[in-house]
This record gives sequence, structure tokens and C-alpha cells, in this order.
Amino acid sequence: MADKPPRGLADVVAASTALSDIDGQQGRLFYRGYDIHDIAGRISFEECVHLLQRGSLPTTQEFEGIVDELAGDRDLGPTAESLLPYVVGSGTPMEALRTLVSALSVDDPDASDPSLEADRRKATRLVAQMPVLVARYEAERSGRSVPDPDPGLGIAGNFLLQISGKQPSPREAEIFDECLVLHADHTMNASTFTARVIAATLSDIHSAITGAMGALRGPLHGGANEAVMKTLQSIEGGPEAVDGFVRAELEGGHKLMGFGHRVYKTEDPRATHLRRMSEELAEISGDSRFYEMSRRMEQTVLETKGLYPNVDFFAASVYHSLGIPTDLFTPVFAISRMSGWTAHVIEQHEDNRLIRPDSEYTGPRDQRWVAIEER
Amino acid sequence: MADKPPRGLADVVAASTALSDIDGQQGRLFYRGYDIHDIAGRISFEECVHLLQRGSLPTTQEFEGIVDELAGDRDLGPTAESLLPYVVGSGTPMEALRTLVSALSVDDPDASDPSLEADRRKATRLVAQMPVLVARYEAERSGRSVPDPDPGLGIAGNFLLQISGKQPSPREAEIFDECLVLHADHTMNASTFTARVIAATLSDIHSAITGAMGALRGPLHGGANEAVMKTLQSIEGGPEAVDGFVRAELEGGHKLMGFGHRVYKTEDPRATHLRRMSEELAEISGDSRFYEMSRRMEQTVLETKGLYPNVDFFAASVYHSLGIPTDLFTPVFAISRMSGWTAHVIEQHEDNRLIRPDSEYTGPRDQRWVAIEER
Repeated sequence: MADKPPRGLADVVAASTALSDIDGQQGRLFYRGYDIHDIAGRISFEECVHLLQRGSLPTTQEFEGIVDELAGDRDLGPTAESLLPYVVGSGTPMEALRTLVSALSVDDPDASDPSLEADRRKATRLVAQMPVLVARYEAERSGRSVPDPDPGLGIAGNFLLQISGKQPSPREAEIFDECLVLHADHTMNASTFTARVIAATLSDIHSAITGAMGALRGPLHGGANEAVMKTLQSIEGGPEAVDGFVRAELEGGHKLMGFGHRVYKTEDPRATHLRRMSEELAEISGDSRFYEMSRRMEQTVLETKGLYPNVDFFAASVYHSLGIPTDLFTPVFAISRMSGWTAHVIEQHEDNRLIRPDSEYTGPRDQRWVAIEER
Repeated sequence: MADKPPRGLADVVAASTALSDIDGQQGRLFYRGYDIHDIAGRISFEECVHLLQRGSLPTTQEFEGIVDELAGDRDLGPTAESLLPYVVGSGTPMEALRTLVSALSVDDPDASDPSLEADRRKATRLVAQMPVLVARYEAERSGRSVPDPDPGLGIAGNFLLQISGKQPSPREAEIFDECLVLHADHTMNASTFTARVIAATLSDIHSAITGAMGALRGPLHGGANEAVMKTLQSIEGGPEAVDGFVRAELEGGHKLMGFGHRVYKTEDPRATHLRRMSEELAEISGDSRFYEMSRRMEQTVLETKGLYPNVDFFAASVYHSLGIPTDLFTPVFAISRMSGWTAHVIEQHEDNRLIRPDSEYTGPRDQRWVAIEER
């Protein structure tokens, strides 16, 4: 190509996908042609997994099938279990979980099978294992045990049960289920793109997912939801103090996390739903502090910078209200995005071509070797 | 952009780099402006690490400094050591090493420091640790212990010593040292690009390198050198049988690994050096079988398909002659490429922009949710 594309591959088409689509101008997101506004709150995460990994919203029979499979696939295997105590001690949860997700392949019965059928089994297994892995991590570092899953609850409810040791209210489980649906897929975001670049060498799904975990960790990607919560908690004085805080930060040249998006030029449609959930959870708990602060912050940032909140912004107060520890916000994002990552790996393997771009050389030319004693 | 670029981002400029440059038409490769033909066999891997990570070929004093640093940075830390027995038992070496490289962060004193100074320390440490990790892996699965490093040997010689338990001949150490230099960097290859995509979320260097390990594993990337060796070993009848084998494979529609390259339209300049090494090692050992077979194969493939051997093709017979187990060929590639990966992560962090491409949606549109019992 004669023209050099914009930095960071902005607006450059890197792959074709039938999984999701974004209309950045209109602020719309689609999973396999379904508008997120049409399905959010109406389909469960299990239905969403079926939609992304298997191509359609499930019939009742298909739904029962995938629920059974997911329930039967929860076991982490002895290797990840054995490694947990070694990696829990220091570092961030995403650092430990990157190592643990990588180790899941050791006990995966399909690890050495590169077929698409095996990819599909591994994809479902990874979605089933991820919430258990996060709950086991939390229990291990807290010296607790993880309660057995409740067969009456789905992935969302069981995660809330296992992370806290307490039965979630039906409405809490529903709201968290909707969070998982909202975070499930989002075209060529950095972690999904990472997974596809790795998969395109015909490497295995665990390699691709481990790489995606590393990318999601970054503060410019999944790490932003944790950063938003820390910002909210750092503001002394509650909602009244938000305005001054935001203006001081922006004048100081600091970036406020949770705002703006490479693709959306208007409100991120996921933020619309997360704002509503944040409000509802504030009403349920009777503690509206972080919801009110978030509202103030979004107004001030829109007025001063013209930036809209993205998916990470209201996710912070929602996860906080659901009792999820702040440093597990990004792992919770990974629980959901595992469904999209794995579906993208399958799609890449189905019609593969190595992803190997070019680069522009900016260094010195015509260097000549001289012996070390003459340098 | 109006035009859709070619699949797999072929010829699309994804990043700027001052580390390496390729002239695909002329078959030339440069590290920071030095032609690979000018430095191969003349600089040690330690000098190459200094060139890539620190920007220049070292003076005598700088060379002594980086050699001391690399020698002092070999320790894997207790976590990776503890994990070794759990991941050695099953799966491929690259699968185990992906988990172990990820776990190196747990004991890295700079793991939580995102500064460029800490990046540089971690980069040198990872280069020092990688050969020890591969040797420890080999020893663990073989029930042996790893000999102490010989202070008179560099990274190349010490790796051959530690992997085999035997002192390498000076010429073997020199040849392997040159192999490490030849594999050190290669612009936006899939694993390096993976590392940059991960680093561009401002994630950490261990996350980026772990992702790169996953990409290198793929048979369309680093996994190809192992595939070449298996092909050579599968041909019954020696050099005379190569011609018939190649023609039968190509007629059967099979891809022969180790040939062709996304960027080079003529001979890969690294293959030129590896061919020479393969010949020399055949003379030294008195066993020229795989060298002769490789020469026959390259001639037949060039005549029938017009494809040139790439870096992986002669690396196979070279590594085999050096006594490296076939399933460690890709880990050996990683030992060398670690120098390039880490230098690219530093470069990405020095002047960062999120790498987030677009995608083309190819699925159905205007889907409407219906209740599960009506599907």
C-alpha cells in the first residue's frame, strides 16, 4: 500500500467477522445482527455464549444442552489447582490469572487436538472454567473455600455465590448476568485482536486466550474499569467534589479513565444499560454515592472535553455495588469476554490467513560493523 | 480508509520501528541499520542484545557490563522453579514454557513498575532467564540436573552445556551463537506484532512476552523449524528419496514447511548463513544426511514451486547437528527472539498508541429477538 495508515491501525480493516459489528457514528452494537438494545436484559449469558460460539440464539433444547455442558465443564483440573497457591501471593490478579489460564491446557483433554470440533469443546470449557478460576483465586488469597455451585443458578449467579460465599438476590444475579452479556464481544478490540493474531499462526486456543488476558490487563483496555473505581474512591467529599476534581485533573493534563472510545463518536450503547443498572443498584442498596459521583463526572467530562463514558465507566459502580473486590473488575471482564475471544479464535481457524503486517523503518541506515576495540 | 487492505494485513504498515528493516525484493535484513551479512558471525548474541535493547553495538566496557548483567540475571526465582514439575508432564514444551514465562513475573522485583527504566531491566532479565528456563525444562523432564554455567562461556555456549550436560566444542558454541544472532529480530513477524499489540494497552512486558510465546508456537510461525525436522526424518531412503517425496507431497496438496515468506521474494538472507552452518556441521560430524536431504529439497521446491527456503529450513538440520532435541527447536527460537520481542515492547512503551484495528462485518443483519419458546 502506498499510503501509510493511521497509527495504531485506527479504522484499518484487519479481519472479517460475523460475530459483532459497531456503528460508531450512531452508537450501536450488534452481536450476529442482534442490536444490543434488543437483547440486553432479555437473553442470559448462556444464550449469548450459544449465539457467539454456535451462531444462533438457542432453542429450549439447545439451551438445556449448553447449560448442561457448561455445568459439566467447570472443573479446573489438578494442574491449575496445584499452581494456585504459588501465584496468589504477590502481583495483581490478572498476572496470576494469565499464568493459570495458560496452565488450564495441561489437563484439557483436547489440548493437542487442532481440529475445529476440539476448538469448540475447548471454547465452551474455557467459558465454564473462567468464573470458577476467578472465584478460586479470590478464595485462595482470602483463606476461604468456594461453595459448591447452585444448580438453580446460571454462570452469573454462581459466580456471585462463589466469590462472596453468599446467595445473591435474584435481581443481583439478573443484573450481573446482563453485565456479562454486555461485555461479551466487541469486534477488533485489542485483546480480541491479540487472540486472532496468535490463532492465525495456527497456534492453539489456550495460547490465544493467554495472550488476550495479557492485553486485557492494560489500563488502556480492560484495566480501565478498576482505574475508574480507584478514581471515584480517591475523591474526598462525595458528589459535590467531583466537578473540581475533574477540572483539576484535566488542567493537570491527566487522562480520566472510562471516557472516549476509538470507535464510538457518541455514547457507547453498553454505557446506557450500565448507567441504568448503577442507578437501580444504588436504589436497592440505599447507597447512591458512587452512582451520583459517576453522573456528575460524566456531565463534567462531556461539557469540558466532549467525551462520552465508555463501557468501563458505569461498570465500576455496578461491580462495586455487587460486592466484587475492585482488583477483580478486570478478571470479571475476562469472564464475559472469554465468550467472544473463543468465538473469534474458532472463526480465525475456520478461514485462516497469517496476520503479519509490515512496518516503517525509522532508524539509522548504512551502519558498518567495526571491531569492538575500535568502537 | 475506503479501501479494504489485503487479508492478514499483508504489506500494511502497522507500526514504526528503529529495530530492524527488511528489503524483501533484494533479500536483505538489517538490525538498526547493520546488514545481517555484515554482522553475522562477527558479533556475539550478547552484542546483539545490546544493539537491539540499548541502541548500539557495545564498546568493550559496555560489553563487559551487559555480560555481567546477563550472568547475574539468570536466576528464575522460586515460583517458576516450583511450577516446573507441574507443567513438564504433558503437552508440548512451548505450552509449558508459555506458563513458566508468565510465572517469571511473580518473582521479578520490577514486575509492578511500569517505568521505562524497569522495562529495560526486565528486558535484560528475560533474555538471561529464557535459556536457563529451557535447559531447566529439559533437565526436569529427563530427570537430570543442570550443570552450573561456565563463566568462560556466553549465553550460546552455556545453553549447549546446560541442555546436554556436556561442554560444547568452541566451534559448536560459535555456530550456535551465530544462530541466536540470526533469529534475534525480524520486524513485524506475528509474535513480535502480538507483543506490541499487548504492550500498546500499556500492559506489562511479561504479558506481552507470554502472548508472543503463544504466537511463536504456531506452525505457520516458529513451529515451522520443528515441522521441517520431522519432515526430513519421515523420508525413508535418504537424499535419493527426497525428490519423489517432495513431488508427491505437492501433488497431494500438502504445504511443505520452511519455504516461502510473506516478505521475502527471494532468498531469506538468514537461510544463506544457516545453509553454510548446516554444511560445516555435517563435515565436523561426518554425518551429512540431513544436510544433503535439505539441499535436494530446496532445489526441488525451487524448481517446482519457485519458493525459497526461509529461516526455519536450514535451522532444523543445524539444531539437530548441535544435539538439540527436535521438540526444543521452537523454544530455542524463543531464546533468541526474546531479545527482539523485549526491545519492541520498550519501543512501543516509549511512544505508545493503542493498536485497535477495525473489522468488516460479514454476518446477518436486522436480527430480531424472539422468546426462547418461540425459536
